[in-house]
Amino acid sequence: MNSSLERFQKDFKALKQFGLLENGGATRLAFSQEDLAAKAWLKQAMEAAGLEVSQDALGNFRGKRPGLEKNLACVMLGSHIDTVPEGGHFDGTIGVLAALEVVRTLNDNNIQTRRPIEVVNFSAEESSRFGLATMGSKAMIGKLNPSVLKDLADKNGISLYEALEKGGYPPDALESAKIGRDEIHSFIEMHIEQGPVLENKNIPVGIVTSIAAPTRFKVSILGRADHSGNTPMDMRRDALTGAGEILLGVEQIASCEAGKKTVGTVGYLYVTPGAMNVVPGQVEMGIDIRDVSMADKDRAVKKVKELFAKISAKRNLKITHEILCNDKPVALSDKIINTLKDTAQELNIPYWVMPSGAGHDAMNMAKITDTGMIFIPSRDGISHNIAEFTRMEDIRKGMDLLLKTALKLAQE
Amino acid sequence: MNSSLERFQKDFKALKQFGLLENGGATRLAFSQEDLAAKAWLKQAMEAAGLEVSQDALGNFRGKRPGLEKNLACVMLGSHIDTVPEGGHFDGTIGVLAALEVVRTLNDNNIQTRRPIEVVNFSAEESSRFGLATMGSKAMIGKLNPSVLKDLADKNGISLYEALEKGGYPPDALESAKIGRDEIHSFIEMHIEQGPVLENKNIPVGIVTSIAAPTRFKVSILGRADHSGNTPMDMRRDALTGAGEILLGVEQIASCEAGKKTVGTVGYLYVTPGAMNVVPGQVEMGIDIRDVSMADKDRAVKKVKELFAKISAKRNLKITHEILCNDKPVALSDKIINTLKDTAQELNIPYWVMPSGAGHDAMNMAKITDTGMIFIPSRDGISHNIAEFTRMEDIRKGMDLLLKTALKLAQE
Repeated sequence: MNSSLERFQKDFKALKQFGLLENGGATRLAFSQEDLAAKAWLKQAMEAAGLEVSQDALGNFRGKRPGLEKNLACVMLGSHIDTVPEGGHFDGTIGVLAALEVVRTLNDNNIQTRRPIEVVNFSAEESSRFGLATMGSKAMIGKLNPSVLKDLADKNGISLYEALEKGGYPPDALESAKIGRDEIHSFIEMHIEQGPVLENKNIPVGIVTSIAAPTRFKVSILGRADHSGNTPMDMRRDALTGAGEILLGVEQIASCEAGKKTVGTVGYLYVTPGAMNVVPGQVEMGIDIRDVSMADKDRAVKKVKELFAKISAKRNLKITHEILCNDKPVALSDKIINTLKDTAQELNIPYWVMPSGAGHDAMNMAKITDTGMIFIPSRDGISHNIAEFTRMEDIRKGMDLLLKTALKLAQE
Repeated sequence: MNSSLERFQKDFKALKQFGLLENGGATRLAFSQEDLAAKAWLKQAMEAAGLEVSQDALGNFRGKRPGLEKNLACVMLGSHIDTVPEGGHFDGTIGVLAALEVVRTLNDNNIQTRRPIEVVNFSAEESSRFGLATMGSKAMIGKLNPSVLKDLADKNGISLYEALEKGGYPPDALESAKIGRDEIHSFIEMHIEQGPVLENKNIPVGIVTSIAAPTRFKVSILGRADHSGNTPMDMRRDALTGAGEILLGVEQIASCEAGKKTVGTVGYLYVTPGAMNVVPGQVEMGIDIRDVSMADKDRAVKKVKELFAKISAKRNLKITHEILCNDKPVALSDKIINTLKDTAQELNIPYWVMPSGAGHDAMNMAKITDTGMIFIPSRDGISHNIAEFTRMEDIRKGMDLLLKTALKLAQE
């Protein structure tokens, strides 16, 4: 029994049309016209596969394939189909379509499972439109604060509440989006890696052990703007050279002084006044520290704060920071990890056991059920970009692993 | 005979309104709406002082007070009124307004001079908008390459050519901006010091001997944009940490590895894509190296280039640079320096003989005529900053020195 890559590719091509850009990329922001049209298409495709589709206050779709035993908790498979602006066609999408293909393959082979299998499409996984990520799965585990519905708005001032209403979803029914722990047996998300590890190792499938969580700083450095020609080097309070020490310090801490898996990034930096002939008086920058170990991340964060103090004193700069978030890493289920490993072994699919540096809906689902993730290689490690690409032959292997693993879990 | 500080202050207050910021500073970028409005005001003020005003392709204003002998070369006095972003109200401005006051004082006293006296306002002295400094005076001495008109653009993509046209100046008539050597007898620019020397010595007037010159680089660093969570530290090609090494390297070279007076500054830096969760793929930055010794500056420039090569190899980044200018330090006219010294002595004004670390329009004018500069103290040495401040009592002394010196030269 094998899934049909041909059928998957047909779906992939159909879904690609929604929000397709002239440059080849995709813009399918959460609850935009493009996203809503794609969801309508998806609902039809789920129904065509015989699923009973229900939708909730956040527009999450759950498509149920009944089990032999009516009241057992389901095995859930899926991801999301919304994208960042000018994103690619693989991020999220392949996980939803692979789940759909799993169901159709079971149908083709007349396989009945003990437990129900559900295909899920989570809404608004990307934070691009409303500034908050994985909102659909947060709502499903009952962790979406109702106040965000009206508090969060896109750059045109449209609130999440309005966007949901416009999409035909009932935002006031948020509570009913919550899934009971007794309704779900396990969850598996297949997703592109969005990093270079699998490609570098030439391995088609990653089995994810844990999901790293970020600590994010907004840092402000205040020095003094001076004339670049007439201010001797030893009389300067240059905010940008201070920032230079932070750039290299964060790199050094993440590379050598915290954990093995710690990553640290300064992603943006603004200089004021920002002119060729003025010593910079002010710099604002964003720092993102991630780790799968909370202890290692805490150590890195502590060292970054010490760095601020050291540079501030040495250079007579005022360095202030705001912690934007300080999330806990999430360990995935050992049971699912082991089942995935065993199944990959049986299917003769090479795999690599690895953490995820990026956040996913799986990290929410892991709070209520046994959860696993399958990674598929990203070319050049690129995602959130029109150049995002994943090979179909790798997707086929991931899909087979998803199918066989889901089948095992659904027979438990 | 004395100039009127009261009248000067009235002008100063009027000019201050153009581009006045809520924080008290000024933003009057070359050919911006604020600059154009200030120029319109200045033209009227020049005409009100009886000057025949002409304007050229770069928007330089020359206001002529005729001499007794019609065909003699003129004594020219002036500076500029454009500013850096969030700059002050004294840089350039006091030199233009002092020149205007000189003319009005001669008018008040019915003094005819042998030679014509011209008040000049040079356009685009600051490089903030288009990355190239003293463009007006460069055009006037025939040293502005016509290609820069269309090649240079501001950060919104507006070319110098377009900005000139929008301002009502004829960019295609660049050649006619050139002044003949036989038209000009001498040039004096009064300007704030923009450094701490005069204030520290408690001396109201500086007589400038030479002007340090900049070498300016536009540097582009190309790495690879990657997901900040999923890209291990050792697989990154982070353009911004590469930039961090350049920031600290330039500082180290200027502070310790070149000449005693060398200064080096990275004044602006742009990050692409510039998002919290993306490793920066690209950085563009501007470097400004200055010295009064060409040999010391050359040594610093050589070391900066070696730095690029070293960082590029070490971090697998593509670092390219463009030299925007590589100017020679300029010695001012001994004749004018001596006339200024003698006149200061006669007027009982304490003075200090000193070099200038900053570039000025005077350094261009020195290439075609006898040129001098008068410096007035800057509080705390600060300029290019909203805190820029110069005492009116010092300005009065500088203005008297300018008046008496110009009068001597105009009678030659």
